Amino acid sequence: MRDGFQIEPVFIPTDKKIDLANSLSRTGLVKIEVTSFASPKTIPALADAEQVMKGIDRIDGVEYAALVPNLRGAERAIACDVDELNIVVSVSETHNRANLRLSRAQSLQQIGEIVRFVNDQAQINVSLSTAFGCPFEGEMADSNLLDFVAQTIDLGIMRLTLCDTTGMANPAQVRRLCLAVFDRWPQLSLTAHFHDTRAMGLANALAALESGVVRFDASLGGLGGCPFAPGASGNICTEDLVHMFEEMGGCTGVNLEKLLLLARQLPQLVGHNVPGKIINAGPSSRRYPPPELCNVGASQPRLAGTDTSAIDPR
Amino acid sequence: MRDGFQIEPVFIPTDKKIDLANSLSRTGLVKIEVTSFASPKTIPALADAEQVMKGIDRIDGVEYAALVPNLRGAERAIACDVDELNIVVSVSETHNRANLRLSRAQSLQQIGEIVRFVNDQAQINVSLSTAFGCPFEGEMADSNLLDFVAQTIDLGIMRLTLCDTTGMANPAQVRRLCLAVFDRWPQLSLTAHFHDTRAMGLANALAALESGVVRFDASLGGLGGCPFAPGASGNICTEDLVHMFEEMGGCTGVNLEKLLLLARQLPQLVGHNVPGKIINAGPSSRRYPPPELCNVGASQPRLAGTDTSAIDPR
Repeated sequence: MRDGFQIEPVFIPTDKKIDLANSLSRTGLVKIEVTSFASPKTIPALADAEQVMKGIDRIDGVEYAALVPNLRGAERAIACDVDELNIVVSVSETHNRANLRLSRAQSLQQIGEIVRFVNDQAQINVSLSTAFGCPFEGEMADSNLLDFVAQTIDLGIMRLTLCDTTGMANPAQVRRLCLAVFDRWPQLSLTAHFHDTRAMGLANALAALESGVVRFDASLGGLGGCPFAPGASGNICTEDLVHMFEEMGGCTGVNLEKLLLLARQLPQLVGHNVPGKIINAGPSSRRYPPPELCNVGASQPRLAGTDTSAIDPR
Repeated sequence: MRDGFQIEPVFIPTDKKIDLANSLSRTGLVKIEVTSFASPKTIPALADAEQVMKGIDRIDGVEYAALVPNLRGAERAIACDVDELNIVVSVSETHNRANLRLSRAQSLQQIGEIVRFVNDQAQINVSLSTAFGCPFEGEMADSNLLDFVAQTIDLGIMRLTLCDTTGMANPAQVRRLCLAVFDRWPQLSLTAHFHDTRAMGLANALAALESGVVRFDASLGGLGGCPFAPGASGNICTEDLVHMFEEMGGCTGVNLEKLLLLARQLPQLVGHNVPGKIINAGPSSRRYPPPELCNVGASQPRLAGTDTSAIDPR
């Protein structure tokens, strides 16, 4: 909800947000990033953070997370009894300055202040933007990410998300970096966050899964996006990701049908179509009635166009 | 070109098709399926098969393939000196009857006739539709595919394509089936053909690559589709696939920049946008100038919305 709604130009009514959070709570998802405690001036779409957080029903087994951009945001989140505070910092200095108007050193200092303030009243996750490359600086050495992970862990953080903010990651890189992080910090709670900007969203998720990652950020319907990269698409789509993992024989614990019901409500909620594929195509298990053309050699007009071939009725 | 153009409602002028084939020949692609020798009544979009095949420049190292639906098509293709005849048959009996109005046994018999007629004047590839599941019959046992591959090979075929016609495949299944086929027929020239209908197109390609597949069908811009599956998307996109493999450090031999130049001409050629991602987002190597916001702590208005966070300027 946070990453999906923050850049929507329309304000989703508070009661609709609460309804959606309550419905998502009953799909089997283990964590929902409900909102952001940014300044209402900065992100007017999420100006109702307190009302939403206080208005939702809390379901056992579901963590309710919120983005906090600074100490003031952390104070507001703690006052709302948020389960997990999500703090963002970019691995790229240029992107951090562009996105947060802080140097990375200042961001790390701020994270330290938030850790001390929260003092175990809630979990803290740090999302590392541009972990797989920066649209301004380009590719970065793997050591750059690993050094930054080390600095973050030194602040007492044990929940980290590697974010492919502008869709630059590829599966080989995802595998290499995830394995390197797990190798050095096997106890870390690591989440992967991908965008489908360059068609590799689910391929990267597959590579992360095979590298041991079992936590994934995704957004219902594939909402979201990045203002720094024209043509950039939204986050990978929650229901498409669940569908792939379930089709592979995995057990996500998430009820795909319930997710799809909610995803199908999004176009009305946000006022535009969403990029998710399964809400259009249906799951792989979807069946179609065979066309009335099964009499071999019969002379009915055949279906116009085929994917694969066409008989020549000479 | 065959799979991309066959369902387009507009007729692409013959000289434009020839131009595109000639340009694609110079991108490093090793095979181009140029057209289909179907009846012009059945596929009017490709009614100019002879003119196109005879009009193009043949480049050394590039195979020029064409779909042939039957013996008559094979005769026409051989008369045009096609390098590889591509014949389609569905692993699913119901899909084969719907798509070709033939039983599978009739299709196999026809393939045998074409093999005897061609008599080593050209290569023959058989594309197995619904290899990963059928929209009418649903999932199929792996043994069903393997038995059908065996019957095809018994006809003298050593080039096979496993086609995920309606986007039902998942990466675990792709890996399992490709490994099973290679295990039994290590000498087989195996191609994988995926659609992005359910967002798994490149994830499936990744799984196939990791299972030893080095030949992939794809269509420029992601053109194509399947009339049997509402919401079904086109083939995986050639330039997106090349981009992923190259980003992973692979050597496709294909010049991505040249492909992108051609893909960007498609909307004008076919009269609608195409689903490819890289033509919109640019490759991962694309760089953006940093925004004018890098003075830490400066008071400029910040960029509206961010992917990941927002500073609270209290």
